[in-house]
Amino acid sequence: MEYHDSPEARELAERARAFMDEVVIPTERDLLAGGPFTEDLVDELRAEARERDVYCPQIDEEHGGMGHEFADVLPLFEEAGRSLLGATAMRVDAPDEGNMHTIELVGTEAQKEEYLEPLVAGEIRSGFSMTEPRDGAGSDPKMMRTTATKDGDEWVIDGHKWWTTQGDEADFFIVMARTDVDAHPYEGTSLFLVDADADGVEIVEPTPHLGQSMIPESHAEIRYDGVRVSEDALLGTENMGFVHAQQRLGPARLTHCMRFTGMATRALTIAKTYMDDREAFDSTLAEKQAQRYAIADMETRLHAVRTMVRHAARQISAGEEARIPVSMSKVFAANTTQEAVDLSIQCCGGPGMSRKLPLADFYDAVRAFRIVDGADEVHKRVIARDAFDEANVRPEELANLPTF
Amino acid sequence: MEYHDSPEARELAERARAFMDEVVIPTERDLLAGGPFTEDLVDELRAEARERDVYCPQIDEEHGGMGHEFADVLPLFEEAGRSLLGATAMRVDAPDEGNMHTIELVGTEAQKEEYLEPLVAGEIRSGFSMTEPRDGAGSDPKMMRTTATKDGDEWVIDGHKWWTTQGDEADFFIVMARTDVDAHPYEGTSLFLVDADADGVEIVEPTPHLGQSMIPESHAEIRYDGVRVSEDALLGTENMGFVHAQQRLGPARLTHCMRFTGMATRALTIAKTYMDDREAFDSTLAEKQAQRYAIADMETRLHAVRTMVRHAARQISAGEEARIPVSMSKVFAANTTQEAVDLSIQCCGGPGMSRKLPLADFYDAVRAFRIVDGADEVHKRVIARDAFDEANVRPEELANLPTF
Amino acid sequence: MEYHDSPEARELAERARAFMDEVVIPTERDLLAGGPFTEDLVDELRAEARERDVYCPQIDEEHGGMGHEFADVLPLFEEAGRSLLGATAMRVDAPDEGNMHTIELVGTEAQKEEYLEPLVAGEIRSGFSMTEPRDGAGSDPKMMRTTATKDGDEWVIDGHKWWTTQGDEADFFIVMARTDVDAHPYEGTSLFLVDADADGVEIVEPTPHLGQSMIPESHAEIRYDGVRVSEDALLGTENMGFVHAQQRLGPARLTHCMRFTGMATRALTIAKTYMDDREAFDSTLAEKQAQRYAIADMETRLHAVRTMVRHAARQISAGEEARIPVSMSKVFAANTTQEAVDLSIQCCGGPGMSRKLPLADFYDAVRAFRIVDGADEVHKRVIARDAFDEANVRPEELANLPTF
Amino acid sequence: MEYHDSPEARELAERARAFMDEVVIPTERDLLAGGPFTEDLVDELRAEARERDVYCPQIDEEHGGMGHEFADVLPLFEEAGRSLLGATAMRVDAPDEGNMHTIELVGTEAQKEEYLEPLVAGEIRSGFSMTEPRDGAGSDPKMMRTTATKDGDEWVIDGHKWWTTQGDEADFFIVMARTDVDAHPYEGTSLFLVDADADGVEIVEPTPHLGQSMIPESHAEIRYDGVRVSEDALLGTENMGFVHAQQRLGPARLTHCMRFTGMATRALTIAKTYMDDREAFDSTLAEKQAQRYAIADMETRLHAVRTMVRHAARQISAGEEARIPVSMSKVFAANTTQEAVDLSIQCCGGPGMSRKLPLADFYDAVRAFRIVDGADEVHKRVIARDAFDEANVRPEELANLPTF
Repeated sequence: MEYHDSPEARELAERARAFMDEVVIPTERDLLAGGPFTEDLVDELRAEARERDVYCPQIDEEHGGMGHEFADVLPLFEEAGRSLLGATAMRVDAPDEGNMHTIELVGTEAQKEEYLEPLVAGEIRSGFSMTEPRDGAGSDPKMMRTTATKDGDEWVIDGHKWWTTQGDEADFFIVMARTDVDAHPYEGTSLFLVDADADGVEIVEPTPHLGQSMIPESHAEIRYDGVRVSEDALLGTENMGFVHAQQRLGPARLTHCMRFTGMATRALTIAKTYMDDREAFDSTLAEKQAQRYAIADMETRLHAVRTMVRHAARQISAGEEARIPVSMSKVFAANTTQEAVDLSIQCCGGPGMSRKLPLADFYDAVRAFRIVDGADEVHKRVIARDAFDEANVRPEELANLPTF
Repeated sequence: MEYHDSPEARELAERARAFMDEVVIPTERDLLAGGPFTEDLVDELRAEARERDVYCPQIDEEHGGMGHEFADVLPLFEEAGRSLLGATAMRVDAPDEGNMHTIELVGTEAQKEEYLEPLVAGEIRSGFSMTEPRDGAGSDPKMMRTTATKDGDEWVIDGHKWWTTQGDEADFFIVMARTDVDAHPYEGTSLFLVDADADGVEIVEPTPHLGQSMIPESHAEIRYDGVRVSEDALLGTENMGFVHAQQRLGPARLTHCMRFTGMATRALTIAKTYMDDREAFDSTLAEKQAQRYAIADMETRLHAVRTMVRHAARQISAGEEARIPVSMSKVFAANTTQEAVDLSIQCCGGPGMSRKLPLADFYDAVRAFRIVDGADEVHKRVIARDAFDEANVRPEELANLPTF
Repeated sequence: MEYHDSPEARELAERARAFMDEVVIPTERDLLAGGPFTEDLVDELRAEARERDVYCPQIDEEHGGMGHEFADVLPLFEEAGRSLLGATAMRVDAPDEGNMHTIELVGTEAQKEEYLEPLVAGEIRSGFSMTEPRDGAGSDPKMMRTTATKDGDEWVIDGHKWWTTQGDEADFFIVMARTDVDAHPYEGTSLFLVDADADGVEIVEPTPHLGQSMIPESHAEIRYDGVRVSEDALLGTENMGFVHAQQRLGPARLTHCMRFTGMATRALTIAKTYMDDREAFDSTLAEKQAQRYAIADMETRLHAVRTMVRHAARQISAGEEARIPVSMSKVFAANTTQEAVDLSIQCCGGPGMSRKLPLADFYDAVRAFRIVDGADEVHKRVIARDAFDEANVRPEELANLPTF
Repeated sequence: MEYHDSPEARELAERARAFMDEVVIPTERDLLAGGPFTEDLVDELRAEARERDVYCPQIDEEHGGMGHEFADVLPLFEEAGRSLLGATAMRVDAPDEGNMHTIELVGTEAQKEEYLEPLVAGEIRSGFSMTEPRDGAGSDPKMMRTTATKDGDEWVIDGHKWWTTQGDEADFFIVMARTDVDAHPYEGTSLFLVDADADGVEIVEPTPHLGQSMIPESHAEIRYDGVRVSEDALLGTENMGFVHAQQRLGPARLTHCMRFTGMATRALTIAKTYMDDREAFDSTLAEKQAQRYAIADMETRLHAVRTMVRHAARQISAGEEARIPVSMSKVFAANTTQEAVDLSIQCCGGPGMSRKLPLADFYDAVRAFRIVDGADEVHKRVIARDAFDEANVRPEELANLPTF
């Protein structure tokens, strides 16, 4: 299908597609057959990605990336999503990708040198430390309890975070903390760069969770107990933490949409291949209409995701906030891709549940998408508020109804 | 929401929006309150539409229209769909709109003068006579049994049609008939212009059906018994009837998508207004989350329709067939708009079922959309065939699975 | 399928089945072909129903019925539902059936003689006047504004009702009015028997609505303006109106479930017959797997309705309130039957939309079921309240989660 | 909710409920907090189950069970399903439970002594070896390729099986093999008892799959290469293997329905507890209507499962085949329980994905249910065939439609 992307976008996606087919997916197949996941393997994949000009395309050249426009990178994200190894290989893997984006956007030159460039190079890793345990910040970030208090030219961070992706492996964290407890949290919260080995940072424990089979990555519980950082550790503007988080999230949600669309598309390809190969009741499964049509539905909805995401990206590129189209894309994509993966498993029967195919790993991994980066319910809340805006309510429509 | 339409498209839509709000919807309200639907009323609406420059925008100026590009007219179609009277008022009403399009596309100058121009002017009406009774052409048009046989310089048409929209009111029909019975139907069928008062044309009876409450239009059963027409009655190229029908249907399906999207959007507006007004269990219905979120889902899916339709229109404007994106848009739009209307009724409770609001009429009218212009199942068939194309089947994906 | 009903229930259902197949459905077919609906036709159907021992089976013999137990009549209701004429023919038609039930349950001997017996005989008709216009009682009956004030040995009724089924045709109404405005409405509302020709009763107008094609029945707006009735007009116990309404509704909801299950089953039978007859793309529609499986899903869900309804009826027969199983049955049945009818139309294509088959009428009629007798949302509210009962909340389940 | 079970059934379920709440679920909580799963732990749980009279209730007392009727054990199965450890603890765990049932039903006394009694005692384990790799038996068991050939008074088994549950741990297998290759497979296949250490049995490898987190159980690929067993190893009647498999499957499908219903119910309890505890946007999640209503829907559908399963069990107890009600129960239960678990995760947000709660394990485990014991598609095939039976097709319904 033709999506009217720019020539740059197409070339990038084409290179990514070849890289996936020729390198990443065969590597994944080895892992599924029992091979080990190692740091060396990651390094090899990344070296090959650099070689093929598909490494960190979204970051400026001066910091080690390829300097592409956001909209031009989207199709590559879809390619990358076709294997759980793809984003890692092309260095567009969460949470590092979002963290790089944030530092590039609002960081100082010193911060970029210290954190962004080694991140891009793949020498270090990072975590985004926002979510807190029960009773703290979650879907409702206003409930944040972690604080950063100014003490001379230092900030002292105290708090308790949970579900920090890559928490156990990170070299540093972007920590979100309230810096003006009298203000509304949206106007009194800031971001800080905190080294993982700073005094007072305690990785309580990694939280085992769905989706750790292919890439053994933690989601850690972390305590910040009187952690002191210098003024230079403030990332972006004081008290603007939520604004920066939103700047990070808009594009990040769209890149997630594309990545998971890639996953769903691959899942359907596997299902179609299996159906084409497997016979039952006197014909191949591919000839059975019910699942054929179910797949047609999914292809249709994935097509919808691709047109919605491009629309939202165009809004963002035009400098608009694009909150509603982003929320719509995200909630629609998350539900669609989860269902597409689920359908693919069903079409493959027993093999679909086995870890010989990547579908079982996809099944576990995709489940997060309806929860992270704004749960379905949070996005629906935003969309509904807009839908019930007074401009959309027209009392004259009820004129014919009897009333008291 | 901004959809990046051209300035021409926006201005046209804006004028249409004002026309709907100021003229058409108030007229509809009068009808729902018990006022009569008359020819005079249609004439008045059309005069006002001409006045406001929203009349027949899709037809060339030389034939009485406004000469707009297809893609530029789409947003107007959405506006027109907000009332069942809208398309009639702006003279973009089926089946005349599609028939005008076909004659404009493949008709001779004489045919345009005789049929197209009076159609545009609203002086005559037309039917598209394709569907046949049981055992004849329906979802599978290959089963067509109506024939046209050359006899000297005349064609003799024999057949039995059903479900000809506007059959009882039409001044002429575009009749689809097999002209080469030895060829595959797709390569041996032609279109003919047949006057309703020609000898041998018998309107057997109008078929009562869902959706006749607002505009009393028939879907007739018609027999063609030795109907003789001259060679000049052939519309387009001999034996190319199915190609012409497809040329008609691609854009027509997209305009239907937009019209029904307009209907669904209006339905949701009515629902939101009712919910904002009505209290139950200590708050307004608008404050009840379950239906708010259900509406958010619908708004999301309607947004998806709008981005998909524009994508497909762009393909068509680029001269591509766009069969898959059109089928995807159509099947997705038809299901979405039916559900949106149904949800709107549910949100309005009793009043939703009453004919004091337009929702009950919408409910009946929208049901046709999943059946006409290709039933859901026909579009899924096309989409699935494309999805299972051999390029999408990759045997290497099964390499890890045991086999015999 | 065997549902372990009593021998009485089976025999009754078998007679009803024969009556439907041999008399009612052929009569319906005549109406769909254009025949007129007349009072004589109703009388003939009822005479035949009496002859075949399927007339008013749920009412005691002393009042003109057959004296069957509630649970034994359920399978007959399913049979009756197979045509929109069935309930009328067997005199189990709403709202008269529910009104008969209420008078039989809580009426005085005099009331039974004056109202119940002529109702059973089909000599008079009745309405249940509860719902009020916007701002009054609807889904939330606590908002009731109609009052009945004691004045000597008379009650004076003032109020404004809407959506009173059969309002225009009724000989009397059961009117629900607040009799103790200081009490909570659930404890201060009563039922009254009010003759339609009493002074102060004004039928403002019938409200046109979905579903009037087969049986032309009104849903009227009615004003009660200082209507005086004697003490004997109080139906049941003073201030117990809501309790009586619930006694009426529990069983009535189950009988509705069975009626609409019958409608859905008939709709599917028509769809299967059409699919068996109609060919497209080289095989009959019955051989196309996607719709076959969609029908299998519906059959499954209708089977679920039948087992749920029987379970709830058993609870009611044991003297329990059965509020949760009744609400579950109702909301599940309403959604299932609407979808089954909708699917049947889709399977029939164009003919499904025509009024030559009963499906279009079913489509309009079934839409009410998710709204009347408690909208979906009201039942879900009740079910959710029960589900979140503190007995179902177990804090120890969260023991492993981190917290502040 | 009251389901009209027998007093025996209720007492059994009540004891099981207490056992689950007091012993099994706390043990599960320890495992989720990081404790090890050991054989000792299983032994302790089973000792306690014996103590509390909830051990192997479905097997005759003479073979070590409790001798309860099938229908009376169903509610216990629901209790057991509330934790993945429950079935193991009460010795009603698949595939041993089904294997015990089969041996009890068709085995000889010697077979019962050798295999059934140690199974009941928990001294040995077993596998059911039916499914084969690609191109062999799967959803369509007619495609079976494994054979058993008579050679003197021995049978020689040759074949390749896959997906044999507990394959790596089993002490013996029930192997399904074709014994009359000229007959239709349904009439030429037999069951054999094969010791795991017999010559020619090769466990190729365990197949990693979804759902191994709580109980590390294999699904192995196995080759049978000229495995010789004596005549006494034939289980049941020669060539009646499929009949025996069906006898096993009917009740087994219903017990699975109840087990997974228990899992879904527990998942919803956890979700409700979390929602009751967690706040966001100014109220607890339990007060948010959208998810409350989604839970109400699930409770409704689980209620439907319970009434359907009891209906089917009653049919089976009456000696009927009950194929349709069993298939309906199974496909409906599998989809409902999967959705209930998925919803519960969504309601819990991040914690729902963590393995601190059992939901993530449930999510993986429940995915199998729509595939094993007849995939959805296989059951729909059976239900559809019944629905389109000629008795359900009535040509007179189309009498009003025009035709050629």
